[in-house]
Amino acid sequence: MRDAYHEELAALTGRLVEMTRLVRSAISRATTALLDSDLQLAESVISRDEEVDRIFAEIEISIFDLMARQQPVAVDLRMIIAALRMGTDLERMGDLAEHVAKVARLRHPESAIPPEIRSTIVEMGQIAERLVTKAGSCIASRDVDAALELEGDDDAMDRLHRRLFTVLMADDWKYGVEPAVDVTLVGRYYERYADHAVRVARDVVYLVTGSRTPDADIV
Amino acid sequence: MRDAYHEELAALTGRLVEMTRLVRSAISRATTALLDSDLQLAESVISRDEEVDRIFAEIEISIFDLMARQQPVAVDLRMIIAALRMGTDLERMGDLAEHVAKVARLRHPESAIPPEIRSTIVEMGQIAERLVTKAGSCIASRDVDAALELEGDDDAMDRLHRRLFTVLMADDWKYGVEPAVDVTLVGRYYERYADHAVRVARDVVYLVTGSRTPDADIV
Repeated sequence: MRDAYHEELAALTGRLVEMTRLVRSAISRATTALLDSDLQLAESVISRDEEVDRIFAEIEISIFDLMARQQPVAVDLRMIIAALRMGTDLERMGDLAEHVAKVARLRHPESAIPPEIRSTIVEMGQIAERLVTKAGSCIASRDVDAALELEGDDDAMDRLHRRLFTVLMADDWKYGVEPAVDVTLVGRYYERYADHAVRVARDVVYLVTGSRTPDADIV
Repeated sequence: MRDAYHEELAALTGRLVEMTRLVRSAISRATTALLDSDLQLAESVISRDEEVDRIFAEIEISIFDLMARQQPVAVDLRMIIAALRMGTDLERMGDLAEHVAKVARLRHPESAIPPEIRSTIVEMGQIAERLVTKAGSCIASRDVDAALELEGDDDAMDRLHRRLFTVLMADDWKYGVEPAVDVTLVGRYYERYADHAVRVARDVVYLVTGSRTPDADIV
């Protein structure tokens, strides 16, 4: 039987997993809104980001409270530190999905994404969803091997990000500056979304093993 | 006379202030490297970012150690949480300065910045420096009023960021896609640098007063 303290720590895990679900849904809807120029869907991503912010605020309050009332040590202490960091990353992922949705809204009823770029954006969206889904599973299972796998998916995202620039900079780019700026920003949002998912996974490794991978090599 | 515990907390403050000095110097040199197409200066920003990462790693170790050995409460506990967050933001600011330097390096010996954009980049660099300088003073002085002032400087950065897009999207933009992509990315780096400085200032407010401004409204 667990005491109230450990119930509260477990609740932190539940809240973080819930955040991964919300920001997965957000990037999924944002990608569709962007590709289909769907204003209503874009608006739903933008308005529902506050749900993510609210859960993160609850996590922060809960953490501060736990630290003030208990003297967490070892893995519990790492859980609290990791939860604070993971919550920050997940909150940011929600913001980035919102940024993608705002580009869709800005260009509506036109599409911000030229046909040559669509398949790359589809793939970036899929990888983003895969990364955050895996991150959520890792938080729930504390599976270190699964957490380490996320680095490989992030490499795939980086390749797609570079491919975007190749298409943008090619001599036959015929869409001019505005779509190039949109695609540059959107590409950056997906790439950062993936980076934050990797950081979440690294914090799972940290909380289980106590060893930290420096974030410095995530650019 | 202070005990070893409070000496360690004070040392955290010193390390954070040192980080602000390093990332201020980094964005200053990166801006010059970008505007003057100075490869050597760009390389110095890129190679010296590891110094920032190293100090942040020391801060993390010190925080984990303090939390494991002590039972920090109230303002000390807030200091530890705030230091972890501030360190994360400052480390990211170092990365962003490095990104600016990498754009300078990529386009060398050409300049990534067309003449019409130079004055805006100069101003963005100045505001970035002002923000991080103020953030450093706030960390050292714990001056809440000064910390709250940073929001105004960040508004100025946001205005410059919007001005960049106005110039890029104008009909008389004659530089084509590549410089537009560079300027879009560089603009985003400065704007994010400023956002992180504002977050640092907000954490000073939090550590002094215990009340948090949500980050949600920093986009």
